[in-house]
Amino acid sequence: MTVDPRFYAPSGALTLGRIADLAGAELFGSPDNEVTGISSAANARRGDIVFLDGDGRSAPAISAEAGLFVTNEANRKYVPESASGVVTRLPRYAHSLAALAMYRARHDAWSGEDRIAASASVHPDAHIAPGAVIGPDAAIGEGTRIGPNAVIGPGVQVGRNCAIGANASVLCALVGDHVTLLAGARIGEAGFGTMVGPDGLRDAPHFGRVILQDHVSIGANSCVDRGVFDDTILGERTKIDNLCQIAHNVVFGRSVLMAAFGGISGSVRIGNGSMLGGRVGVADHVQVGDGVSLAASAGLFRNVPDGETWGGTPAKPAREWMREVAWLQRQANPKKKG
Amino acid sequence: MTVDPRFYAPSGALTLGRIADLAGAELFGSPDNEVTGISSAANARRGDIVFLDGDGRSAPAISAEAGLFVTNEANRKYVPESASGVVTRLPRYAHSLAALAMYRARHDAWSGEDRIAASASVHPDAHIAPGAVIGPDAAIGEGTRIGPNAVIGPGVQVGRNCAIGANASVLCALVGDHVTLLAGARIGEAGFGTMVGPDGLRDAPHFGRVILQDHVSIGANSCVDRGVFDDTILGERTKIDNLCQIAHNVVFGRSVLMAAFGGISGSVRIGNGSMLGGRVGVADHVQVGDGVSLAASAGLFRNVPDGETWGGTPAKPAREWMREVAWLQRQANPKKKG
Amino acid sequence: MTVDPRFYAPSGALTLGRIADLAGAELFGSPDNEVTGISSAANARRGDIVFLDGDGRSAPAISAEAGLFVTNEANRKYVPESASGVVTRLPRYAHSLAALAMYRARHDAWSGEDRIAASASVHPDAHIAPGAVIGPDAAIGEGTRIGPNAVIGPGVQVGRNCAIGANASVLCALVGDHVTLLAGARIGEAGFGTMVGPDGLRDAPHFGRVILQDHVSIGANSCVDRGVFDDTILGERTKIDNLCQIAHNVVFGRSVLMAAFGGISGSVRIGNGSMLGGRVGVADHVQVGDGVSLAASAGLFRNVPDGETWGGTPAKPAREWMREVAWLQRQANPKKKG
Repeated sequence: MTVDPRFYAPSGALTLGRIADLAGAELFGSPDNEVTGISSAANARRGDIVFLDGDGRSAPAISAEAGLFVTNEANRKYVPESASGVVTRLPRYAHSLAALAMYRARHDAWSGEDRIAASASVHPDAHIAPGAVIGPDAAIGEGTRIGPNAVIGPGVQVGRNCAIGANASVLCALVGDHVTLLAGARIGEAGFGTMVGPDGLRDAPHFGRVILQDHVSIGANSCVDRGVFDDTILGERTKIDNLCQIAHNVVFGRSVLMAAFGGISGSVRIGNGSMLGGRVGVADHVQVGDGVSLAASAGLFRNVPDGETWGGTPAKPAREWMREVAWLQRQANPKKKG
Repeated sequence: MTVDPRFYAPSGALTLGRIADLAGAELFGSPDNEVTGISSAANARRGDIVFLDGDGRSAPAISAEAGLFVTNEANRKYVPESASGVVTRLPRYAHSLAALAMYRARHDAWSGEDRIAASASVHPDAHIAPGAVIGPDAAIGEGTRIGPNAVIGPGVQVGRNCAIGANASVLCALVGDHVTLLAGARIGEAGFGTMVGPDGLRDAPHFGRVILQDHVSIGANSCVDRGVFDDTILGERTKIDNLCQIAHNVVFGRSVLMAAFGGISGSVRIGNGSMLGGRVGVADHVQVGDGVSLAASAGLFRNVPDGETWGGTPAKPAREWMREVAWLQRQANPKKKG
Repeated sequence: MTVDPRFYAPSGALTLGRIADLAGAELFGSPDNEVTGISSAANARRGDIVFLDGDGRSAPAISAEAGLFVTNEANRKYVPESASGVVTRLPRYAHSLAALAMYRARHDAWSGEDRIAASASVHPDAHIAPGAVIGPDAAIGEGTRIGPNAVIGPGVQVGRNCAIGANASVLCALVGDHVTLLAGARIGEAGFGTMVGPDGLRDAPHFGRVILQDHVSIGANSCVDRGVFDDTILGERTKIDNLCQIAHNVVFGRSVLMAAFGGISGSVRIGNGSMLGGRVGVADHVQVGDGVSLAASAGLFRNVPDGETWGGTPAKPAREWMREVAWLQRQANPKKKG
């Protein structure tokens, strides 16, 4: 995945030697190796630096193009022999130092008095309400309405006939046509991820984007976090209610419905046309098929095949769950049995 | 229910023939029938156009005054013989085309630089903080405080001695006296409702209002959606905590308390003086009596009579629910039995 | 606890006689007793007026320095013999009348057009985005970034290298260094507390603060309420995900992690290094030790000792809870047994 320069200003390539210096880490391979990008190990392209951490008990997914690594000792055995890199006790932290030396989020340097940046491209038939703020190099399409006191970040692209609600904010995002964000929606914030630094917990920096395809709707005060290195994607006509949370790197298919207080953890996949009742929670990396129904309040920790209906916490097939609910009621309240 | 012209600009009456054209639908009755309003079938007044959809297996509630229908074949049998209308495969969608041709939400056309609209009526003893935006024809009463970067939409009426928090937003609402909205509260957004259009899912447009009676308080980042055609109403002294969701067409009585993460689905009724613990969810159309207590985390799918205490998911009378909890614990952990 | 004059403008001392007049209450002791502050009974200093309410069946915690009381008849027996005060049917309400006569929240009187108050102290190397509002006497440290349309209230102190997200708001708070608030975070709103006044329910006024120590991070649209009289405190490097709620008077230790939709009720204590999964709820006054893990969706009503892992609703030790889940599944679905 290439870091999108519309959202992250590149500072140019680094050498591996420079990264070893930044991180106080031990080098393997030539210090002159040029690092031209950053990535997760799974999605690396040639020139990207990636990290491996954890206890090394299971083999990480590593792209065939990955050739530059930040690793700890436990994972060094997974580094391809031809690759170069650095070894450190804190690989994710060291990787973040390299990443932050190579890219800076444009919204981090946003200051000044211009509510609508001179470099923003606003269609003459867009409606910009009072107090709306539009960042440098953002683009707003024909017929789109930006609500009062809403915020459109640097480089954000908003298509045609969209409606962005009052006090909503959008960073690091590509927004299609006919997209609706209700008031207070938060698109493109960094996700919840911590790493261990030399002095304790730190927030992991995020370099991905949010993609909202055509006709997506997001409810009031709902949040869609941007990806760590990759993208968070909501497919066409997916409709999200108020006060929902969609974490980094999640991918929703088309025409998914999610009711209020839905919470989707990192890297989850939700198939086309699935329906999630109120207060459904899905644990990270879970895969939900097409046409799945999840009953209100379900807490899902396992993959669900296409077309099934699940409920309960931990969620299971609905028939099984309802059998438990009914059985328990009968057993515990014997007078009601007859 | 009459659509309130303070929030929706009327474009004038339509003929039934025009609606048939807009929707590509088959007409029954005279094309010259004049359509002067829109409504749900249950609450129609003379001249309103209403829709009937679904599979037609159960008879819908239809007001005695309803005489103009958008229906599918399955529901045509419920249309009174004297009535006129159009038949289409997509009645809700066709109805929305008519509705949007007759009314336009005033906040959809809000643009310009005037933070406080010239036509707004702000009492000289109101306090308007920096960055607050007040729309055309809004009114702010004596002693009321509008917080920094808050948004008061076109036509919104705010009474006396209210406090509207920072970055809160209010659309399509009538707000009484002594009402408090904490920061980020979202009043009057469209509710979560989808309909099938010719090309897939679409958001159902909303033409109702929110009514907040005297001494209502709404917590930070909580949401109260406006009604579809009717109103969402919170009675006097009802107090809502942070991060709650109240959907379209809900009616709360007086002095209801709802703790954080409470979620109330569409068209629910909550009686006077009821108390809802944290994270309570109530399914749509459920009726909760006066003086009811719902335990924290209850998920309610059935009506609750006055004065009862319920808990669990699915919620049941608290005694029954606690018996189940205790019985399961004893049975599954036999060492603890003795 | 002394009320912080940076956030609450003091109007000067009152006499006990004046309070009796304000509240229409019966006096005991001299009317000339000077009341110089307000507090909870447990944390009173000399000169503070405190209240005792409830049915009087259990003895309240009362500071040895407390000498000025607003009480009802049921609690009068707990008032030390040497103390003075007033007796009323509505002690909390009467106390609030005194409190509001002595202190006024500075943000309640915030008005005007100055986005950045002339009396605010903004470091020249801070970045203030367009639309941000900074109140009188607030201070913004070096390298700190205030996002577009964010709000920093009167007197708020923000340290160095902080990042305050778009449309976030901060009132009555002291914010350390390297603190991150994502978009729409709500820091320092009044908590959810009601009292009975002569005409029905009223919101209890809040006079405390929020303290966010160094390296704290708060997710998008999350809320941290200020204390009633004391402080709500988040320890160093505590990390809170999106859409969480932290109520008044809560104290978190260091390096606590709380995932999305976490809800912490009033006066809870959470120990250092504890980890709370998604949608965890903790009832008021519960004490959670150091290094505790709470599984996703846990609903906690009891104290948890250091180092334990709990889950379920009502939450119990995880082993016990998982045994119940597995046992119920086996019993209710006998075909799966074999």
